[in-house]
Amino acid sequence: MTDLSTLVNHQTRLAARPTGAASRENWRFTAEPVVDPGADGVVVQVLMLSLDPAMRGWMNEGKSYIAPVGIGEVMRAGGVGKVIASAAAEFAVGDYVTGSLGVQEYCALDAGALGRAGLAKIDPGLAPLEKWLNPLGMPGMTGYFGLLDVGQPKPGETVVVSGAAGAVGQMVGQVAKIKGCRVVGIAGGKDKCEFVVRELGFDACIDYKSGSVRDGLKQHCPKGVDVYFDNVGGDILDMVLTRINRGARIVICGAISQYNATTAVQGPKNYLSLLVNRARMEGIVVFDWADRFPEAIREIAAWMAQGRFHSREDVVDGGVAKFPEALNMLFSGENFGKLVLRVADGR
Amino acid sequence: MTDLSTLVNHQTRLAARPTGAASRENWRFTAEPVVDPGADGVVVQVLMLSLDPAMRGWMNEGKSYIAPVGIGEVMRAGGVGKVIASAAAEFAVGDYVTGSLGVQEYCALDAGALGRAGLAKIDPGLAPLEKWLNPLGMPGMTGYFGLLDVGQPKPGETVVVSGAAGAVGQMVGQVAKIKGCRVVGIAGGKDKCEFVVRELGFDACIDYKSGSVRDGLKQHCPKGVDVYFDNVGGDILDMVLTRINRGARIVICGAISQYNATTAVQGPKNYLSLLVNRARMEGIVVFDWADRFPEAIREIAAWMAQGRFHSREDVVDGGVAKFPEALNMLFSGENFGKLVLRVADGR
Repeated sequence: MTDLSTLVNHQTRLAARPTGAASRENWRFTAEPVVDPGADGVVVQVLMLSLDPAMRGWMNEGKSYIAPVGIGEVMRAGGVGKVIASAAAEFAVGDYVTGSLGVQEYCALDAGALGRAGLAKIDPGLAPLEKWLNPLGMPGMTGYFGLLDVGQPKPGETVVVSGAAGAVGQMVGQVAKIKGCRVVGIAGGKDKCEFVVRELGFDACIDYKSGSVRDGLKQHCPKGVDVYFDNVGGDILDMVLTRINRGARIVICGAISQYNATTAVQGPKNYLSLLVNRARMEGIVVFDWADRFPEAIREIAAWMAQGRFHSREDVVDGGVAKFPEALNMLFSGENFGKLVLRVADGR
Repeated sequence: MTDLSTLVNHQTRLAARPTGAASRENWRFTAEPVVDPGADGVVVQVLMLSLDPAMRGWMNEGKSYIAPVGIGEVMRAGGVGKVIASAAAEFAVGDYVTGSLGVQEYCALDAGALGRAGLAKIDPGLAPLEKWLNPLGMPGMTGYFGLLDVGQPKPGETVVVSGAAGAVGQMVGQVAKIKGCRVVGIAGGKDKCEFVVRELGFDACIDYKSGSVRDGLKQHCPKGVDVYFDNVGGDILDMVLTRINRGARIVICGAISQYNATTAVQGPKNYLSLLVNRARMEGIVVFDWADRFPEAIREIAAWMAQGRFHSREDVVDGGVAKFPEALNMLFSGENFGKLVLRVADGR
C-alpha cells in the first residue's frame, strides 16, 4: 500500500462561472495532501479523465439534470483509476475502477462517497483503459440506450447522427449499422467523415464544414430520415427537421453548438415539422439506464472482440493542468474521437 | 328533390396566397350554377362551416400533411349539410352529413369525390348541428385522441392546455378532468378564463392577456406540468417548457401564434428542457385516428347526455361572403368557443 503522506494531489477547481466559452480564468489550480478516507474508504490514483460537452453545462448555475459544480470545488469528471489504498471490502489495492473521480490526481472517497461517485471495478483485460471512457463508458452507454430505447431504429430505416466522429456518434452509427439501418453521419472535416465511413462503416458522412448539410441530406437520405440522433442542435437540427419522415424519432442527446451561447439558445424554428410528420423529439440522460449498463458493456465488448465494433479515442497528455485547454478542444471540434485526458500512466 | 337548375351556388375561392395575415384581396367570390354530379353522385346544401386555424396553413404553398388549396379553387372547409339530391345508395335526400364541403352554398360530389370529401351521415337528434363541428367533429377528435393517445395523462397528473377556450382546448381540458387530472388552461381574456373554469370545470385558467403566464404556471401548477397540449407555440410554449416535469409529454397540435408569421417561425429556445427532463414533444394530425372516430363520438355524446361534458360554439352569420372576416377572428382571438360560419338555416 502506498504511503499517502508522501503524495501531493494536484487539482483543477472551478474558480468562476464562465459567460460564453470557458477560459483559464475560470479555473484555479491547487495542490493538497491526500487525505486518509477513513474506515471503509478508498483512495484512487486517477489515470485518465473523460472530457465531455456536458461539462460546460455543469459549470452553469441553475437547475439541470445534475447539480452545478460549486465555486471552489474540484471540477467534476468521470475517469478511470487504480485503487492505491482501500479499507473497503469491495475494493482491493491494484483494482482498476471507473467513477466520478474529479479533475485531480488522487481521489479519496470515504464510505459514504463511494456510492455517490459510482465507483465500479472494471476488467482492464477486456479493453484498454481509454475504452472504458468511450464505448464501455458513459458516451457508449448514452449512444447505445438512446438509440435503441428512444430512437427505436428498425431494419431498413435511415438513421442520421450528428457529432458522428465523437464519442456518442461512433456508438450510435455502429449500433444502427448492426441493427440493419442505413446510417448517415454529420461531422466537421474530411478526416472525420472518412473515418466514420471507412473505419466505422457508416454509409455516408456529410461534412458540415465544407458544403451544404441540406444538399448532403438530400443526396444521402433519398428515403428521408427516420431517426435523428442529435448531439449538436442549432442549424443542423433545423435542417434535419425538414427531411424527417412520418413517425420519425429525434433523440435529443445534446446541443454542443449552443452550450457556449451567451444569448438565448437557438430554438428549432422548424419544429412544426413534428406536427406535419407526426414525429417526436425526446430528451435522454444516460443515468436513467444505470441498472442496465452491465448488459450493454457485455454486448459491446463482444462486438469489439468480434471486430464488428471500432472506436477511436483522442488521448491528450499533460495532466490536470491541461484540463482547461483540453475541454475547449471539444467546442472547436479539434479533437478526433472521444477526448480523454491522461493524468498518469497507470499500467 | 330540389330542382338544381333553379339554384345559384355562391362560393369563396382562394385568389392569391397571403403573406402574413390573409385579407379580402386573397379571396375571390363567385356565383355558379349547381352542377349535376351524375350517377352515384350527391348534392349537399351547406348549412354550417368549421373555421379552423389550420386553414391558414392550407393557403400556403409547400409540403404539409395535406396539399395546399390551389389558386382559384374553392377554399377547403369542413362542414355540416343536408343532402338535397342523391343518386348514391348510401345517401338519401334529407340526410344530414359532415365532410369537406368547401366554402360554398352547395357541394356537388360525383361518385369518386364522395370518399375524398369524407362524407358521412350524422344523427342530428344526438346533438345540434354545430356540435358536429366541435366536440363531435374534427376539433373534438383532435383533442380526444391527441390527449389520450399521445399525452397519455394519468390520474393526479397536471395537464396544461393553451387555447383553452377554443374548440380543441375545451375537449382536452374536459377529457383530462374526466381522467382525474389537475387541469390548467391558458386563454386570452377574463371571459374565456371564467368560462373554462366555471362552465367546463377546469381547476384554473391563466389569462395571457393580463399578467404573466410564468407566474400563473408557478401558482397553478405547484407540482409542475406533466402534459402540455399546445395549440399556440411561441412564447407560451417556451414558458411551459421551463415548468415541465421529468417524463413530461408535450403534444404539438398547432401554433396559432406563428401561422401568420412573415419571418421564420419562433422555435422553442427552451427545447433543451426536453433533455434535462427526459421529456418528449410529439406532433399529431387528427386524420390518423379516422377509423376510431365512431368510438370517440359515442363516448363524447354519452358524456354530453350525462351533463359531464359541455361545449361552446361561436356561430357567425353572414354566409360564405363573410368567410374572410370570420377566419381572421381566429387569429385575433375574437371568437369565444369553436368558430362556426352559418351558411344556411337548415332545420
